[in-house]
Amino acid sequence: MLSAEKLLPMLRYYSKTSRRIQALIRLMSADSIERAIQILDQIPCRATGAYSHSQGIKGLRDKIASGIEARDGFPADPNDIFLTDGASPAVHMMMQLLIGSENDGILCPIPQYPLYSASITLHGGTHISYYLDEETGWALEISELENQLKTARSRGVNVKALVVINPGNPTGRVLAEANQREIVEFCRKEGLVLLADEVYQENVYAPDKQFYSFKKISRSMGFGEKDISLVSFHSASKGYYGECGKRGGYMEFTGFSPEIREQIYKLASVNLCSNISGQILASLIMSPPKVGDESYESFSAEKDAILSSLARRAKILEDAFNSLEGVTCYKAEGALYSFPRINLPDKAIKAAEEAKTAPDAFYAWRLLNATGIVVVSGSGFGQRAGTWHFRCTILPQEEKIPAIVSRFTQFHKQFMDEFRG
Amino acid sequence: MLSAEKLLPMLRYYSKTSRRIQALIRLMSADSIERAIQILDQIPCRATGAYSHSQGIKGLRDKIASGIEARDGFPADPNDIFLTDGASPAVHMMMQLLIGSENDGILCPIPQYPLYSASITLHGGTHISYYLDEETGWALEISELENQLKTARSRGVNVKALVVINPGNPTGRVLAEANQREIVEFCRKEGLVLLADEVYQENVYAPDKQFYSFKKISRSMGFGEKDISLVSFHSASKGYYGECGKRGGYMEFTGFSPEIREQIYKLASVNLCSNISGQILASLIMSPPKVGDESYESFSAEKDAILSSLARRAKILEDAFNSLEGVTCYKAEGALYSFPRINLPDKAIKAAEEAKTAPDAFYAWRLLNATGIVVVSGSGFGQRAGTWHFRCTILPQEEKIPAIVSRFTQFHKQFMDEFRG
Repeated sequence: MLSAEKLLPMLRYYSKTSRRIQALIRLMSADSIERAIQILDQIPCRATGAYSHSQGIKGLRDKIASGIEARDGFPADPNDIFLTDGASPAVHMMMQLLIGSENDGILCPIPQYPLYSASITLHGGTHISYYLDEETGWALEISELENQLKTARSRGVNVKALVVINPGNPTGRVLAEANQREIVEFCRKEGLVLLADEVYQENVYAPDKQFYSFKKISRSMGFGEKDISLVSFHSASKGYYGECGKRGGYMEFTGFSPEIREQIYKLASVNLCSNISGQILASLIMSPPKVGDESYESFSAEKDAILSSLARRAKILEDAFNSLEGVTCYKAEGALYSFPRINLPDKAIKAAEEAKTAPDAFYAWRLLNATGIVVVSGSGFGQRAGTWHFRCTILPQEEKIPAIVSRFTQFHKQFMDEFRG
Repeated sequence: MLSAEKLLPMLRYYSKTSRRIQALIRLMSADSIERAIQILDQIPCRATGAYSHSQGIKGLRDKIASGIEARDGFPADPNDIFLTDGASPAVHMMMQLLIGSENDGILCPIPQYPLYSASITLHGGTHISYYLDEETGWALEISELENQLKTARSRGVNVKALVVINPGNPTGRVLAEANQREIVEFCRKEGLVLLADEVYQENVYAPDKQFYSFKKISRSMGFGEKDISLVSFHSASKGYYGECGKRGGYMEFTGFSPEIREQIYKLASVNLCSNISGQILASLIMSPPKVGDESYESFSAEKDAILSSLARRAKILEDAFNSLEGVTCYKAEGALYSFPRINLPDKAIKAAEEAKTAPDAFYAWRLLNATGIVVVSGSGFGQRAGTWHFRCTILPQEEKIPAIVSRFTQFHKQFMDEFRG
């Protein structure tokens, strides 16, 4: 709770500057006012319209570091935090840093959120695919990483880093803790930078799964700054907040030499700074209301309602997709997507060829035209040759999902009737 | 003015959603409420927290296109507008598009705002310097462009584009209309893309100068889409608004083939979209209050006060610098900077060499340590060999400038006394 000694001088400050802000203040909870004051106090001249330090406002990075410490139980350093306009620019910065020539390779999952392949291509590097195993619910097998690394090295590629998306986009897989330990050990042993896309860390629906950051895993294995280079990407665009249009994000950049750190800081400086509202949001997602705060109960209820609704939506869509002819769909344990596999009839594949489009894209276009429902074809994420998928978000409002499922089911029946052959 | 028929349904809409917003509305002018409603109406689901079209929200691009038309008197197409997180990402996108190998060259002014050199280096291209002529107040001479182009081509460089910063950063020069015509003719004749950094378009202080966009100039010369490829960068970070921390900006991208346009759209898509608050700000700077609006008078008074104060500050600093021993400073006709030249004594140059720093950086460090005043040394922007400069913003509050000038003058005297030799 905000004490009167704290509140009164602030109100006096604001009453001098603006009656409008004063009116707003009367409508807000004590802890949100205190949080707003704390944030303003951390910004030089209280000016959210001015450039900040190129890594982001120091006080906000302090908040994020504290949030990481509370999440992981291991220390975090605000100087390791780089605030960015969403997670995408942070990924580009890392690719820029890691890729010096086309001989430099980055291990990326297939299927993958295509930002990674796009960024590797833009920076002129080599994309080395490792396949997630659909048969075991999109598991990440270390033997597959080892094989792809070995093959790439035998071709002379200088493999620099491993990208892991956890929870998975588009797969919805949440990695098991034991698997994460293997991945950390693999990166440490092979000298690879671990690029951990952890933007869905709040989106875990499977009761037997939990999100662990790769930083927590590696520190709990006793690996410190000297043992492994590790970058964690996070964003205000997902979770239960979903403020994607605000472009708030950060990366935690650990285990690099001062020389490399200087280069990444120089890269950050070229664009001056990320947007201040996004910076504030990124700090807020890592410092949500706490037990005892006036707003805690409503915050907590809203958060739980959103996440449990998402879990129900994921389950409804999973069941719906599994009931369709020729479609199999693994459980979305986390993230915001279903990624069903669809066995397309030969006639549909032939029709797609004639239309000069990938078979799953052909299916997605037909679906869009028939129902207005947008899914992204698996070929946009990569998939094993001869398999076809689509990604469907679990984001439509819960009350609208039955109607969507019904339209989808009807379309699918008609599509299969047309092409079953 | 906002009519009751328009206002009442909106108030009813808001009263359903939030009493807080209603309270805010009662405190605002009618035209700002109408503008806010118009903006919300242009955003799907009125959600400023959602991703937008990768080029930016269509309705905001419409506003910007109308603003460009009103400014130039020539048509502008909202499909040519790309909203970006400040102007910097737009510059990077253009460099990404134009530079395919180190053989691709970009003509850039010296001195220049170092974003350009940094972006060319990051994208692996060749930076071709052309020198602005300090003796004539940093004029841009076509003969210099021709010479540098010829030399670069004779070295086998594929010169793709010319960067022009107008009003100039750091020079403060505002180009004459006749000079702009020569530049357009040069680019058209030589087949160069004209990259026009026009972020200081509102910052013109010289009574005999006026800002003309390169689009207006080229269209008034009768050159259309087919004749010249032209990109204009603009930003909410400068002008009389100066909301740099909000990261709002756009580029107007004209005179490119549909194939190239598709590539730039693909590039924009990789990062999803720019931040929505910044998008809104970019649209607002191109659609300010108009005569008859309730807020027009206060807007207009505030704008004029800011710009005339900046003009006075520029003049005070120019006079102050010109009164210092060995310092000459051209008039800042526009932008936000003075860029004086300083003839450093040999002893100071020697001391800088011993300190392993550039002589003007040496001066700037000494100034900072002695007075707390930050200037950026000319070596950060590029300058003719053997000349030394520093860039000083005209942004300190007007009432603080006399004290700054006095501290600066005192420092300079002591510095010269120490090193005069």
